[in-house]
Amino acid sequence: MHCRRTAVRAKSYLVYIRTHESGSFVRSSSIAFRCVAGKQKRLIRLGNRLTIYHYPVWDRHLGGTKTVAKQTQLIAFLAKMVKRNLFLMSSSAVHGFGYLEHAQTDLTSFFESNSVQKVLFIPYALTDYDAYTEKVGSVLKRWGFSCKGIHTYPDPCAAVQQAEAIYIGGGNTFLLLRTLYEKQLIDPIRDRVLNHGVPYVGSSAGTNVATRSIHTTNDMPIVYPPSFEALGLVPFNINPHYIDPDVNGTHKGETRPERISQFHELNDAPVLGLREGSTLFVGGESATLIGPPTELPGVSYGARLFRKNQEPVEFEPLSSLSFLMKEDA
Amino acid sequence: MHCRRTAVRAKSYLVYIRTHESGSFVRSSSIAFRCVAGKQKRLIRLGNRLTIYHYPVWDRHLGGTKTVAKQTQLIAFLAKMVKRNLFLMSSSAVHGFGYLEHAQTDLTSFFESNSVQKVLFIPYALTDYDAYTEKVGSVLKRWGFSCKGIHTYPDPCAAVQQAEAIYIGGGNTFLLLRTLYEKQLIDPIRDRVLNHGVPYVGSSAGTNVATRSIHTTNDMPIVYPPSFEALGLVPFNINPHYIDPDVNGTHKGETRPERISQFHELNDAPVLGLREGSTLFVGGESATLIGPPTELPGVSYGARLFRKNQEPVEFEPLSSLSFLMKEDA
Repeated sequence: MHCRRTAVRAKSYLVYIRTHESGSFVRSSSIAFRCVAGKQKRLIRLGNRLTIYHYPVWDRHLGGTKTVAKQTQLIAFLAKMVKRNLFLMSSSAVHGFGYLEHAQTDLTSFFESNSVQKVLFIPYALTDYDAYTEKVGSVLKRWGFSCKGIHTYPDPCAAVQQAEAIYIGGGNTFLLLRTLYEKQLIDPIRDRVLNHGVPYVGSSAGTNVATRSIHTTNDMPIVYPPSFEALGLVPFNINPHYIDPDVNGTHKGETRPERISQFHELNDAPVLGLREGSTLFVGGESATLIGPPTELPGVSYGARLFRKNQEPVEFEPLSSLSFLMKEDA
Repeated sequence: MHCRRTAVRAKSYLVYIRTHESGSFVRSSSIAFRCVAGKQKRLIRLGNRLTIYHYPVWDRHLGGTKTVAKQTQLIAFLAKMVKRNLFLMSSSAVHGFGYLEHAQTDLTSFFESNSVQKVLFIPYALTDYDAYTEKVGSVLKRWGFSCKGIHTYPDPCAAVQQAEAIYIGGGNTFLLLRTLYEKQLIDPIRDRVLNHGVPYVGSSAGTNVATRSIHTTNDMPIVYPPSFEALGLVPFNINPHYIDPDVNGTHKGETRPERISQFHELNDAPVLGLREGSTLFVGGESATLIGPPTELPGVSYGARLFRKNQEPVEFEPLSSLSFLMKEDA
């Protein structure tokens, strides 16, 4: 196999590394990633030690092969280059729409642009895995995608390694995160999404665990996870199902902004309050807010961004939120 | 000091133990407890080993003395006899009332019947301890009680040991429980309340931590406590600020009954959904639901009891909930 220096047409490909010392190529399967056509030609020099070439072949089944590149500095560098593909929905159920219907156009486009035909569904946020997978799978099937529950694989970690796309559904965030830890899937999912560009879809609890931690979930802590640290696919927190205070309400429990304010008394990370019907789309280092295809009168969409010691800021659908992708945002 | 066998008039007193072997009296300060006048005369025989007499003297300052009774079986037996005194409010703020005002009559009576003049306030559920203690303390002062924040004592554990009454305020349940663990107060508070009959007042988060665990809090998990297990002053769970689903609502986040149902998919304990304005009063093995002094039209009070695999049951104020005090309720 020879490395080409010409522009490539394939949508995704592996990265080959040549060390100056040896002159030989080393295939780094752990940093295989996908790129948008037309932007693939890269020649990266890291000091005078490494040159990276791209090879226009994509083999989905190579995902499980061993990592042979040992240069951790290189891996870290490439991880930042790799195109994250995240589709983070506030919720699956949205007032005025059928189940997942509000996301049909954008989610279909998201899968198609990433050449996804088969989705690995992770139903751990609820207890009836079969029923939950059937519920989501039947919708995806109507849209032209196949869907299989991770619980039907003998080895969930291998299922993640081979997945074309990973979709974590909503339910109870504590149960979901505990199960991901129990099945030792945190690192594998993180690796596939961040280092291999495997598209990730989350809804509600699935969106919560995609962020740095579940500290801003609304869910009841029905089980005790070994940590609140989550996948860390984005460097901030999200509050799904974000809802504005009811100015005429008689209930005295804390409002959502009050709860997020309590979080900021003890934590620094920004919190994106994502209203139902809204989705955060992340492509590489860019992040964009997406709204539903049609907006019902009198219903608020978009998101409200809360930062420590600052007034919250409102963002309409189609706003860029790329600034949040910086670690020190 | 001689032991009297006659009925005693003091409201509370110490327990003296005489072993048949030695014939001498041993004062068990660890099982000092309080009783309602008129029910104090007790003569308890445990097999043929021990006879227990009551002595009609109560010295508040004896609480800190060492335990000299070593018969663990006896201690366990007496612990069940000891009169728990719990005043568990759903919330401090209630629609239509000033801060804590809905509880004024009952809480005043609770303190007075237990000869409490000075309240130890634990403000750990919020971050500004001084402001929080001042807020609660100013109300208690108007009602004739003094109040001091536990944070003003050099040794919080010693403060608990000497407290006439313990009052844990609301805020964030996760922060509260983490701090109670950090300051190693779980066992001391539990001991004082269950084994010494020290009156306990909780509101919201303070009510949550009084139960077996915080698995049914509504709060945001802004910090990670070392466990969700709590004081266990009652053998069931409470959901404070309980609110019925809004049948006309457009929000799709889980309703409170749905969240409690998720809890019951993985846990067995009954959950008492305690509406704002309601209080659970526990005296020994009896538990009674208390409502606000006046009920506003159109507002629901009382509580809704959720059990695994059963239809929820509604309880009006003044209902007896003593059946919940059994471990296997």
